[in-house]
Amino acid sequence: MPPQVRSRHRTLIKPVRGGITAPAGFLANAAACRIKKVDKPDLCLIFSEVPASAAGVFTRNRAVAAPILWTRKILQRPILRAVIANSGNANACTGLKGRHDAEAMALHAAAALSIRKQEVAVASTGVIGLPLPMDRIIPKIPGLAKSLSRSGGALAARAIMTTDTRPKTASFEWMTGGRKVRIGAMAKGSGMIHPDMATMLAFVTTDAAVNPQTLASALKEAVDESFNRITVDGDMSTNDMVLVLANGLSGARIHKRNLLSSGFQQALNQVCLGLALSIVKDGEGATKFVTIRTLHGKNKKDCITIARKIACSNLVKTALFGEDANWGRIMAAAGASGVPIHPEKIDIFFDEIPMVRRGEGLGTRQEKKAGRILRKKEFVITVDLHMGTSSAEIYTTDLSLDYVKINADYRS
Amino acid sequence: MPPQVRSRHRTLIKPVRGGITAPAGFLANAAACRIKKVDKPDLCLIFSEVPASAAGVFTRNRAVAAPILWTRKILQRPILRAVIANSGNANACTGLKGRHDAEAMALHAAAALSIRKQEVAVASTGVIGLPLPMDRIIPKIPGLAKSLSRSGGALAARAIMTTDTRPKTASFEWMTGGRKVRIGAMAKGSGMIHPDMATMLAFVTTDAAVNPQTLASALKEAVDESFNRITVDGDMSTNDMVLVLANGLSGARIHKRNLLSSGFQQALNQVCLGLALSIVKDGEGATKFVTIRTLHGKNKKDCITIARKIACSNLVKTALFGEDANWGRIMAAAGASGVPIHPEKIDIFFDEIPMVRRGEGLGTRQEKKAGRILRKKEFVITVDLHMGTSSAEIYTTDLSLDYVKINADYRS
Repeated sequence: MPPQVRSRHRTLIKPVRGGITAPAGFLANAAACRIKKVDKPDLCLIFSEVPASAAGVFTRNRAVAAPILWTRKILQRPILRAVIANSGNANACTGLKGRHDAEAMALHAAAALSIRKQEVAVASTGVIGLPLPMDRIIPKIPGLAKSLSRSGGALAARAIMTTDTRPKTASFEWMTGGRKVRIGAMAKGSGMIHPDMATMLAFVTTDAAVNPQTLASALKEAVDESFNRITVDGDMSTNDMVLVLANGLSGARIHKRNLLSSGFQQALNQVCLGLALSIVKDGEGATKFVTIRTLHGKNKKDCITIARKIACSNLVKTALFGEDANWGRIMAAAGASGVPIHPEKIDIFFDEIPMVRRGEGLGTRQEKKAGRILRKKEFVITVDLHMGTSSAEIYTTDLSLDYVKINADYRS
Repeated sequence: MPPQVRSRHRTLIKPVRGGITAPAGFLANAAACRIKKVDKPDLCLIFSEVPASAAGVFTRNRAVAAPILWTRKILQRPILRAVIANSGNANACTGLKGRHDAEAMALHAAAALSIRKQEVAVASTGVIGLPLPMDRIIPKIPGLAKSLSRSGGALAARAIMTTDTRPKTASFEWMTGGRKVRIGAMAKGSGMIHPDMATMLAFVTTDAAVNPQTLASALKEAVDESFNRITVDGDMSTNDMVLVLANGLSGARIHKRNLLSSGFQQALNQVCLGLALSIVKDGEGATKFVTIRTLHGKNKKDCITIARKIACSNLVKTALFGEDANWGRIMAAAGASGVPIHPEKIDIFFDEIPMVRRGEGLGTRQEKKAGRILRKKEFVITVDLHMGTSSAEIYTTDLSLDYVKINADYRS
């Protein structure tokens, strides 16, 4: 058995229905504007009945899409009332017109909601390099604003899908200081593998009261432990965005001091991790969901670097698809990570089956046993580095024939 | 038309026959030891009739194979007489026994050749994690040493193949200071994509007289411009090795001062680039050979980083396989490289067809024209950064269904 990682969960956080509209004071809905070729919802609006603290994490790609530029800019004053998001078109590499279009989406949503455009975040996902069909989007916005409801979260989650095979939502409830608090979320993304450079959007709402600074630091931690653990093929999107809005309507106040003890950080981590894992599980062409766990590294950063290098290796991923217990590829990927490892100390396990002890393979009998693990849909590969006390997990899929088919044919 | 890169070639360097044994004083041959499952040559020996200056470039993987440890060690005194290399087994992750086996290969070759074991470089390629069948290798060495010949280069090149579909050799001749000089080489490798972490071996021989220090710096430049331009999927081998031996028998003396004017650097670059390109063209499952050229970068390093990021992107590579003019994926990969680019300045060409001007797509008509380019077996993607005066090229392939099949099934 590989050594175990301790859980840090403490507060009782229960799942509830509702997704993005589960927390008090949040409304949502979606409309079909024919941005996509098919007649499905492709534009959604999320609205908070009162001003909400906001924080965001954005792609580090230098070729960022227009909606990212808009939303990053308005978050300099981190109070939001609404988010407008579309699928089917990323509004990326669209020049000055693209920037005007992003602002126009905010402007028209603001007019329909009687708020200021600087209070409306904008997000887009889909094909890049094409101008948004604003003539079909703008006329739909007033009706969309009128149709906002507490039950609109489910439809909104559908409206941001691209190659996703299912919508992705999560919502939880817990008690802190005698108050009932809720957090809700929705995301889109079809694997750590990016449909068309416009992979991942996630929106989180909560009725806790959190000041923007505390919210930003809580979000950073949650994203580092979730969405940043699945971006594993190095293909960074032009449009990635994670936004959180906290409107305070539950009356529960979260400060820097009680971020942990109130359960807020844990709930935010849980909602982000849940969505991140559902993105991996819906990965393009994926037949396996594999956790790469590094144990006993010198520090967290090294553990993440090594696990990510293994999780990103095409050779490891094709071996997973082929159900081949090819631990040599894992060892070689670890060695190629740039982290100073001691290969002669390393143990490797497939679930509980030891495959490598002190850098050497344990033979074909163990590889046969591992075959049983590899045929499962979900398993854990543990790499014990024997160098320190840190650990990390990265979540990945195999690289399948369908991955190639989906991405070779995506636009045709 | 994209701007052109100037050629730097000057000396007349003619191709000749012979590969590794083209230069004076080099002999080679191969034997079948059943290291591979099939009865084909899998052990080869290269011998210089007189002591030769030597230099090597090795994998930077921390999980290095035993032969790398041996050869790196003996090159501290950079004079070699022989190289012994096998395919079918990488002798990697094989612990203490593996290190003894590598040394034993050198020892037995040395005994058969009446030289010292410290004069024998060792290389292996193939499956990792399995002990070498020394009982089948050692008995073959004396006969192999006796059979060495001037015509053995071709068979030696076959003996190091794994998933390669064809042997890879190159040899050239040129005049310097009234002397005729030759350089010869052989390599194995099946694409920038690594069969089983034991990708690339290359051996270069020359009858020029070059001191080890000058040889090492010349090799570094040649490798940087060739083999290091094709290792594009980040899966770094445990066994990569490029060795050069210079025995001086032509009488032509190469010094640091005349490295360029003598034509030696150019010939070495040419032989390495030729082999590197033949490795890419023999890439696993590859249907396209694509040059990613970055122009007008701030410096060479930035140009290489951006071109390599594009060349390594699974999304770009699957689009190439699908013959989809998806320039957005190229833009996004460039933006994700970490180099500060200005997307709004970038032009992109597929061969001579402009696709993107100042960061914006030129429309579906251009994409249709590009279809003609994408259906070719070989083409160039040019990314003009408009930031400076540097340029670089990286050589890559598409990511095909066959790539996944080959690597999912490699060991079964």
